[in-house]
Amino acid sequence: MSDLKITLIGTGTIGLSFAAFHLTHLASSSQLTIYDTRPDASQYVKDNLPRFFNRQDSPNLPSFPDVKIATSLQDAVKDANIIQESGPENLPFKLDLWAEVEKHAPKDSLLWSSTSGIPASQQSGKMKNKSRLLVVHPYNPPHIMPLLELVPSPETSDEVIRRTQEFWRARGRVPIHIKKETTGFVANRLAFALLREAVHLVDQGVVSVEEIDSIVTNSMGPRWAVAGPFKSYHAGGGPAGLEGFFKNIGGTVQECWTDAGTPNVGDGWEEKVFREAKEVYGTVDVGERDRITRRLLQVLEEEKRG
Amino acid sequence: MSDLKITLIGTGTIGLSFAAFHLTHLASSSQLTIYDTRPDASQYVKDNLPRFFNRQDSPNLPSFPDVKIATSLQDAVKDANIIQESGPENLPFKLDLWAEVEKHAPKDSLLWSSTSGIPASQQSGKMKNKSRLLVVHPYNPPHIMPLLELVPSPETSDEVIRRTQEFWRARGRVPIHIKKETTGFVANRLAFALLREAVHLVDQGVVSVEEIDSIVTNSMGPRWAVAGPFKSYHAGGGPAGLEGFFKNIGGTVQECWTDAGTPNVGDGWEEKVFREAKEVYGTVDVGERDRITRRLLQVLEEEKRG
Repeated sequence: MSDLKITLIGTGTIGLSFAAFHLTHLASSSQLTIYDTRPDASQYVKDNLPRFFNRQDSPNLPSFPDVKIATSLQDAVKDANIIQESGPENLPFKLDLWAEVEKHAPKDSLLWSSTSGIPASQQSGKMKNKSRLLVVHPYNPPHIMPLLELVPSPETSDEVIRRTQEFWRARGRVPIHIKKETTGFVANRLAFALLREAVHLVDQGVVSVEEIDSIVTNSMGPRWAVAGPFKSYHAGGGPAGLEGFFKNIGGTVQECWTDAGTPNVGDGWEEKVFREAKEVYGTVDVGERDRITRRLLQVLEEEKRG
Repeated sequence: MSDLKITLIGTGTIGLSFAAFHLTHLASSSQLTIYDTRPDASQYVKDNLPRFFNRQDSPNLPSFPDVKIATSLQDAVKDANIIQESGPENLPFKLDLWAEVEKHAPKDSLLWSSTSGIPASQQSGKMKNKSRLLVVHPYNPPHIMPLLELVPSPETSDEVIRRTQEFWRARGRVPIHIKKETTGFVANRLAFALLREAVHLVDQGVVSVEEIDSIVTNSMGPRWAVAGPFKSYHAGGGPAGLEGFFKNIGGTVQECWTDAGTPNVGDGWEEKVFREAKEVYGTVDVGERDRITRRLLQVLEEEKRG
């Protein structure tokens, strides 16, 4: 894998974040190519890629001339081992893109989509060989967060899944194979379930937007950074594990589930919730958040290595 | 507050964890008293309290003779400034306890319940002065986790809430005032909402118990340790904040909400989920989890102090 050729399509936030990841993990003999239809792609990448690096992680900022900016899709993919698209969330775009990529890319290159919502089974509609396409959905921003959700279509080959897992594992990332194409995949479904209840509680005047965040950052946030929800409740159940947990407080769990709110988008909670968020947070310093997140992930990585 | 007298009622896991917290945060001139109806309370505390301390946090293990074990409720509460119960989750027990405590405790002592489900408005049913009682619900284990949910009844006085907030803030904890008595309070409602969707996804064969945990520990766990869900999505929306976030991907959020599972306790998912948890985790080393959690919380504390 030392002379790997990776091509990224799309220079949005996700695309550039992946570029930063690959540049810090590629062997020097490898090649990163970026393609975007915007006419100023070269200057745009030069201007915007540096903010995805910090000195702590990357003492030697890659020299950007080493990033090749392709001027045509054909040129971008023709000898790539991996082609990863982070383009617009738009099915017609992706349908045409993959049909075109398939024409020009090597037969065994891996084809990955960063989509957060359009399943591979839809994206591959115009492809001749649908077994090559795989959704590789990051948790934003991918140059920092370890998770990647691998969501194959029913036609994606096991070999493609296996090679993709190997790629990410070899780079210290955590690729999780999602067994069924599910609306929103898994991470977002979990997070949005909690968000929905949070919206409900703010809408009902139980707590404020800021208090919800304070509750989460001081309880389940750090807990779930160390042990996920099942493991945590399994521990909470003592020797009887998760079963013991539900035996002890399953009644309370069910009461919360029965009483849970089910606000929908457009139900009228938005004005209050959006206004509170704006008043409390203004513009969030994402650099600061990312720096602290890196520190936590370093601690967790150290602990994992033992 | 330097010669504070704190009395804990109940020597379960929560009670002893609170004991460990108070012993590491009380001035030496203060007094911690523990009361439990079990006849071997003294020996039990001596045997079980030490495991809530670790050398890193408490180089000088408190000398346990300094913890007073009361032999009657009257004796336990008669000159206490704070009386904190972590007894059985059983309304008749708490009704009688608080009526009895009220008879013997100083008029201005703070009365706190650690309950995770029985609101103060029910617990105070037999009290003459219902304004003194406040639920102070920890996130387990309280000697480590910063969050405390303060859940007053409609009759709890503002003064009691204020003094309680001051107590915890002065000790570096994060007390959040929940404005309405809500089934399960807030932290558990949020966590259980995510758990419900997790149960659904495992039940549907989309991912395994272990994969759910891996997804959470590698994405929203560390993220929410640093910034809560609202702040995270507010940042995700760019300059337009949370409103921008919903404008961009509100459609996906709603699709996930519409498609969310609503399994109930007893619906039949239990066998699979409990078995998987047991097979994967066996008995969880809680000490290890707590040690790593402390490290993360220390990093977050450092960052907060700047």
